[in-house]
Amino acid sequence: MKTKLTTFSLIISGLLFMSQNAFAADKPYAIAIHGGAGTISKANLTPEQRQAYKDKLKEAVDKGSKILEEGGDSLVAIQAAINILENSPLFNAGLGAVYTYDGGHELDAAIMDGKTMNAGAIAGVRHIAHPIDLALAVMNKSEHVMLSGAGAEEFALAQGFTLVPNSHFDTDARYQQLLDAREKLQAAAKSEQVASVKMQDLDYKFGTVGAVALDKKGNLAAGTSTGGMTAKRFGRIGDSPVIGAGTYAENGVCAVSATGHGEFFIRYLVAGDICAKVKYQQKSIIQAADEVINQRLITAGGSGGVIAVDQRGNIATPFNTEGMYRATRSNGEPAQVLIWQDE
Amino acid sequence: MKTKLTTFSLIISGLLFMSQNAFAADKPYAIAIHGGAGTISKANLTPEQRQAYKDKLKEAVDKGSKILEEGGDSLVAIQAAINILENSPLFNAGLGAVYTYDGGHELDAAIMDGKTMNAGAIAGVRHIAHPIDLALAVMNKSEHVMLSGAGAEEFALAQGFTLVPNSHFDTDARYQQLLDAREKLQAAAKSEQVASVKMQDLDYKFGTVGAVALDKKGNLAAGTSTGGMTAKRFGRIGDSPVIGAGTYAENGVCAVSATGHGEFFIRYLVAGDICAKVKYQQKSIIQAADEVINQRLITAGGSGGVIAVDQRGNIATPFNTEGMYRATRSNGEPAQVLIWQDE
Repeated sequence: MKTKLTTFSLIISGLLFMSQNAFAADKPYAIAIHGGAGTISKANLTPEQRQAYKDKLKEAVDKGSKILEEGGDSLVAIQAAINILENSPLFNAGLGAVYTYDGGHELDAAIMDGKTMNAGAIAGVRHIAHPIDLALAVMNKSEHVMLSGAGAEEFALAQGFTLVPNSHFDTDARYQQLLDAREKLQAAAKSEQVASVKMQDLDYKFGTVGAVALDKKGNLAAGTSTGGMTAKRFGRIGDSPVIGAGTYAENGVCAVSATGHGEFFIRYLVAGDICAKVKYQQKSIIQAADEVINQRLITAGGSGGVIAVDQRGNIATPFNTEGMYRATRSNGEPAQVLIWQDE
Repeated sequence: MKTKLTTFSLIISGLLFMSQNAFAADKPYAIAIHGGAGTISKANLTPEQRQAYKDKLKEAVDKGSKILEEGGDSLVAIQAAINILENSPLFNAGLGAVYTYDGGHELDAAIMDGKTMNAGAIAGVRHIAHPIDLALAVMNKSEHVMLSGAGAEEFALAQGFTLVPNSHFDTDARYQQLLDAREKLQAAAKSEQVASVKMQDLDYKFGTVGAVALDKKGNLAAGTSTGGMTAKRFGRIGDSPVIGAGTYAENGVCAVSATGHGEFFIRYLVAGDICAKVKYQQKSIIQAADEVINQRLITAGGSGGVIAVDQRGNIATPFNTEGMYRATRSNGEPAQVLIWQDE
């Protein structure tokens, strides 16, 4: 009898254990973040700089992961992670935004909710410390998707945002990059039209930041925030605030945030194309993202990378540049923080 | 002997005829244009107005078709057709652009070359008579894809464009629409936040114009030009200049130009999604466009339509509104000019 009881209780325990595991397996969660892709030379990054990047990426991914672990929304998790990167001068977003040709800063951002397919984006704002917050406000508080320039800031004021001076985004390191870029542009201008200068020949430090997440409720979200291209002119809008290019999320399919040479990401509809391959060709997120970044974009001459997460919490982080600052974390496992392919 | 010769020459003639036909069949060409979709009530359109719309649409589609027939490029054909619509006060593009909330005009446009996957787009310009021409210049003469606001006009000046005063776009009919829209917005504002007013509740005359074409060389192109939404605020950017939303072209797949409630077209990546269904699901352009416009968008609550052409010259013109001003012409056949489903 005792044996029978023990066997019985063992079976019950086993069933309980299995059902808990099944419960847990039904509720995966995952987050991936990036801090830009580009020609990140191992030789040019000191051990201290390397550590500083990795520490900040870890702080951001841990923050987002904790929110997800506690049952929070994917939108909340990605906003929190992006805010941390916007507050760091290491990345080309918020505080560390690059300079425009005219010596100012113009920031872009977008956020998308895979559950509702709602989205908010802003382009060319000059006085918003956390552009991702304004993108979220556009999504939640306006019936528009994309606002630009001074108009977007008028909306921000109406929503109670505090504007900061454009000099808030000034940093010595970025200013030096502007001077270098201007010099190269001016040298190139002597031989050809300024308008046709190949900006991609310049050594850009693409440092756009972004995050994608799957929460325990099964909701996907994606967000991207950037200062754009160093020495950009003419009110240039890159891929970050363009839904389907630099930012996209659709429940049941995937969430993507991109970084790189934005013009190529717009033309090739990078975020949307990755999700279309998952949705219509039943490709894995790994294969879909790899085909777009490492085949299609390379053929086209477009450099950069993406972070992507699918409905089951699988994460892809392909890039066709030397490096991409990134971190990932799934289901409470330790964070993976990487800059190059292998470290 | 004579019979044999005759038989022989008949066979030769037959082969020649077949090869000519095969030649012609290998070189189809087609163009479709639209002048906006919306609540176009048959009762509210006088016979004279109806004729005026149809005449202008026919003029535009004939112009584009002639260029294609003579072996011209699809890009040239769509630009010429769109210029005619931009010059007409009947449509919400160029001369007939609607008013912003503040009583001005801000125009958007985009163009995409399916052969090179190159694209040009402008958002929020105030002094460009033919926005599609500036979008083309952005594509051909800058290394950016999307320029906005005053910066885009600085680029235009550098390219030799002549700026026109914003009052160039003033028309009495559009001003009356602004007054009506403002009144409704202000009435709504008394009961709720201005920012959350449902703009879609207003009776917009969406009048965005666009064109898609396949030329004899097999190259697809798409273009869209618009004054946006009546009473738009905050530097709102709609779907027209967003590559993959309102405008998209890819050789071998399809070319799409959209018109309607732009926010939905951005969120659902309408032009890109139609092409993805053709490319990855091997759906016909008719089925792909119908699924997006008449199934997905209707479920989401997004109103509007598209014109689309595929690599063989098949044309789809679905819309989920009462009417859509449109005209199509393929392979020298007579133009089809329609406003409602059947007439």
